[in-house]
Amino acid sequence: MSSQTLLKKGNDTKTALIRSGMELMTTYGYLSSNIESILKQVGVPKGSFYYYFKSKADFGHAIITSYNNFFIHKLDKHLTNNAISSPLARIQAFYEDAKQGMAKYDYNRGCLIGELIQEESLLPKGYAKVLEQILLNWQAKLEECLLLAQQCGELKSNSDCKALAEFFWIGWEGAVTRSKLIKRSDPLDRFIQLFLDKIVH
Amino acid sequence: MSSQTLLKKGNDTKTALIRSGMELMTTYGYLSSNIESILKQVGVPKGSFYYYFKSKADFGHAIITSYNNFFIHKLDKHLTNNAISSPLARIQAFYEDAKQGMAKYDYNRGCLIGELIQEESLLPKGYAKVLEQILLNWQAKLEECLLLAQQCGELKSNSDCKALAEFFWIGWEGAVTRSKLIKRSDPLDRFIQLFLDKIVH
Repeated sequence: MSSQTLLKKGNDTKTALIRSGMELMTTYGYLSSNIESILKQVGVPKGSFYYYFKSKADFGHAIITSYNNFFIHKLDKHLTNNAISSPLARIQAFYEDAKQGMAKYDYNRGCLIGELIQEESLLPKGYAKVLEQILLNWQAKLEECLLLAQQCGELKSNSDCKALAEFFWIGWEGAVTRSKLIKRSDPLDRFIQLFLDKIVH
Repeated sequence: MSSQTLLKKGNDTKTALIRSGMELMTTYGYLSSNIESILKQVGVPKGSFYYYFKSKADFGHAIITSYNNFFIHKLDKHLTNNAISSPLARIQAFYEDAKQGMAKYDYNRGCLIGELIQEESLLPKGYAKVLEQILLNWQAKLEECLLLAQQCGELKSNSDCKALAEFFWIGWEGAVTRSKLIKRSDPLDRFIQLFLDKIVH
């Protein structure tokens, strides 16, 4: 194989490992996700794993980064979607998309960040800060959208958009977890309904 | 020892095992709570453990029951406290108490039920239903309090108290988890503030 083919194969393997790890961690969290079963699924020997990642903690970081990129893409797609003029309807569209994502896997997979924050006491050093920073970043994006809603008059001019965005992610992660528990969308539905009806109005 | 002394000693041991298990599980969840370290802490040989509990799953059930009793007592104490005439102020008092409880352990211990629902995919059979039932019971208690608030005119007459109570526990568990992550009360504070300011008014 040419060095370019080898490089491509290497990237594919790394991507496959991250994808498989993400599937597992959105279902079982970090601690219970077993490297051996990921290697088996991807068909990679253990030695190769350590070629790509220094440790499970390093692997976890790569998964978190990849998940965050995916999620930010999803958030931006909806929250900055100019085809929908109402900023609050954009939040509704994000929820619809996320809900479909959960339904697709029969509510067995949650939000990776939500899964991991539950395990904070047992996660590798530095993870808690990374997770909090990611949530603050999502919060900032929602705040932007709420400020836009305020400019459009959808939201009262004296609303504290930062506080509302903070509240949103606190409740959202609770709703995803509860939907995963009961394998139904009701908690997500209830959360978004009251958030949009009561909290922002 | 008389049979009565033996019985008392047995009950004390069982209580100590449950208490120690509860401490561990509110911090680390079910899966990562190690029976051996509990036995070591309580000073009980492994054989004795199986005298009191058939299995870890059985032990977990006893811990959940004990926690639920403790929590229901706390909820009732506040939500049916006739010394506070405003039902909404009773919810505020419950929050103050829960917050103090978290601060006491430097935000290292969460809500046992919240901890466990995160692990639903890996819990013993039947746990998910038990956990959901407990949350529905807490929800019914909060709904009662909100109905009272409605009767007092603190809450609009067209408010859906059941939906609000459902929303409360979804968000509450999210707030406890987030406070545990950042070791501060801010998420709890934010949640209760917006819940009481926006949701119920």
